[in-house]
Amino acid sequence: MTQMNSLVMRDGAIHLETTDVPVPASGQVLVKSLACGICGSDLHLTRHYKEIFEFYKLLGMMSDQQDEHTSIMLGHEYCAEIVSYGPETQQTLPLGSKVTSVPFLMTQNNAAIGVTPGLSGAYSEYFIMDEVLLLPVPDHVPAAAAALTEPLAVGLHSVNRSGIEADDVALVTGCGPIGLAVISALHQRGIKNIIASDMQAEKLAMAESFGAQHVVNPKDQDEMQLAASVAGDRKVVIFECIGIPRIIKDFIERCPPKSTLVVTGIHTSESSVNYAYATVKELDLKFSYYYTPEEFAECLSAIADGKVHWQSLLTAKVGIDGVNEAFEVLSGGSDQIKVIIEPWRTGKLEAQ
Amino acid sequence: MTQMNSLVMRDGAIHLETTDVPVPASGQVLVKSLACGICGSDLHLTRHYKEIFEFYKLLGMMSDQQDEHTSIMLGHEYCAEIVSYGPETQQTLPLGSKVTSVPFLMTQNNAAIGVTPGLSGAYSEYFIMDEVLLLPVPDHVPAAAAALTEPLAVGLHSVNRSGIEADDVALVTGCGPIGLAVISALHQRGIKNIIASDMQAEKLAMAESFGAQHVVNPKDQDEMQLAASVAGDRKVVIFECIGIPRIIKDFIERCPPKSTLVVTGIHTSESSVNYAYATVKELDLKFSYYYTPEEFAECLSAIADGKVHWQSLLTAKVGIDGVNEAFEVLSGGSDQIKVIIEPWRTGKLEAQ
Repeated sequence: MTQMNSLVMRDGAIHLETTDVPVPASGQVLVKSLACGICGSDLHLTRHYKEIFEFYKLLGMMSDQQDEHTSIMLGHEYCAEIVSYGPETQQTLPLGSKVTSVPFLMTQNNAAIGVTPGLSGAYSEYFIMDEVLLLPVPDHVPAAAAALTEPLAVGLHSVNRSGIEADDVALVTGCGPIGLAVISALHQRGIKNIIASDMQAEKLAMAESFGAQHVVNPKDQDEMQLAASVAGDRKVVIFECIGIPRIIKDFIERCPPKSTLVVTGIHTSESSVNYAYATVKELDLKFSYYYTPEEFAECLSAIADGKVHWQSLLTAKVGIDGVNEAFEVLSGGSDQIKVIIEPWRTGKLEAQ
Repeated sequence: MTQMNSLVMRDGAIHLETTDVPVPASGQVLVKSLACGICGSDLHLTRHYKEIFEFYKLLGMMSDQQDEHTSIMLGHEYCAEIVSYGPETQQTLPLGSKVTSVPFLMTQNNAAIGVTPGLSGAYSEYFIMDEVLLLPVPDHVPAAAAALTEPLAVGLHSVNRSGIEADDVALVTGCGPIGLAVISALHQRGIKNIIASDMQAEKLAMAESFGAQHVVNPKDQDEMQLAASVAGDRKVVIFECIGIPRIIKDFIERCPPKSTLVVTGIHTSESSVNYAYATVKELDLKFSYYYTPEEFAECLSAIADGKVHWQSLLTAKVGIDGVNEAFEVLSGGSDQIKVIIEPWRTGKLEAQ
């Protein structure tokens, strides 16, 4: 086994290619990808790769020699199966064990799996994980459910970053996977006043089932006015889980005074803002990125213990040759929540 | 006494004019302005009145009928003397008492003194205060010192907003009156690691005398790198007391990861930003505006109790006919800290 099927993002498109199976180095494990979620950030990277590559260069994630035609092997929301251990490993988990991990390689300068040029991602048949980061997935947890650990951890981290307190009013804007993960984390923490905002009725219904007390479609009603009226004198904590340009500017202008705005969406283009609104309203802006290993493990436990209704998040699955179709559907404002790629098989997009 | 000298900002210039002495309404007090500080925001308003008036209209501080030629009677950092009481007042302080207050009229929809069209400000010989907000100024505190209460309260509020903890490292950028007020508040709170940054050696020397342990001129050394190296694993809390366009964008790009950026400067123009830097560094942006009445009273006590070396803040004074000259000097990057207007007299700008 030296060759594999792999999905590669290059020049703004997803290509199904044959690539080398990676070889695990010291401390590393070769795994077979069982299930990998399509993340909003994967769509974002594919659409905006040029500006994101410029930003990667500033961050040192890409060298100046790499150009806009550089390939990225996507996939960072995964559940996988241990195939073989590299040198200097403890090998406490048997081959074939189902595992997940935070998508980083501490053995390789903390490179992020699924976004770093040259690294295999979990949209490929095989990829590399760090042994020390492996979390075993309990037998009763399906691979697709374990692949939800990552987006749930993004939501939990965002809630932890927010500093929200029991009496505050949460407004969760955007009820895709991250917004629902935020609602789930708020609900598990016992936050009573959760308002969910989305343009799609199906997503609002799901937000209610995850614990939102109020739902609002901004096409029909001003979500900020609703939050202000629910809150009265209490603090409003807004979770921005939309990630479209202009939304931060728009929220800064429209949100209630003294709000905290937690930015969970990814914004990579230059945008404009008038900070005078933030000043006179004394806003807090908190930017949230990834999660800690502890938060990640907490989310895997929440899935395993039935604290999250993960079943309703899994709306579709697709084989390795159907991913372009899935990207088109997800980019078109569909009501899909999470689409899971099963890179070990072929097959069109279908309901879970 | 029905007419008075008054300084009026109109069409981006300061005009010395004769206006009506205001008449105190129910709950109000007529006062004689003894001393009024020139605030950076007064310079900012004079320079950028057009864009600020647009913003005032959005905030409801100006009506749509008021145009760009509207007058503002400046002056909100004051010490004054009670001249007469309006109806329905308790009159517990004798006429002639020296007083200060937060610059608001609760009796008039919380209108802000010194920035609201139609209200007298403390650059005028006389103006109106709310009786319930009056704070008596102790005899041993000179009027010019009491006029420093307001900028000191801005600094204290900024420190309270920041959430800074004992072990954190403070970087105070800009050592004008507000930056020095922040340093003073940090020092009084026992914060050990205070770095002060300014382009002028005189201001850095004053920052040291107010409690900064490290000083840095960004022309010679990168202040963010210095803060990161002083901090090591500790959190950096940056106080932005500069208030020039671009500075927030610049700080977001250059500040250390996990920093808190407290925005105390006033930014009223549309500016650009790439939030990706804030995301990957997980920054907190906290916007600070004004202060509470309690913070204001705390600062007056700090002056009266000798906890603040207010003497060194008072670098110059000027009569009512010398204010244009003072504005020119202050706009030209001078090393003045606080210039005090004494509207009851004439006279050129001179050292205190």
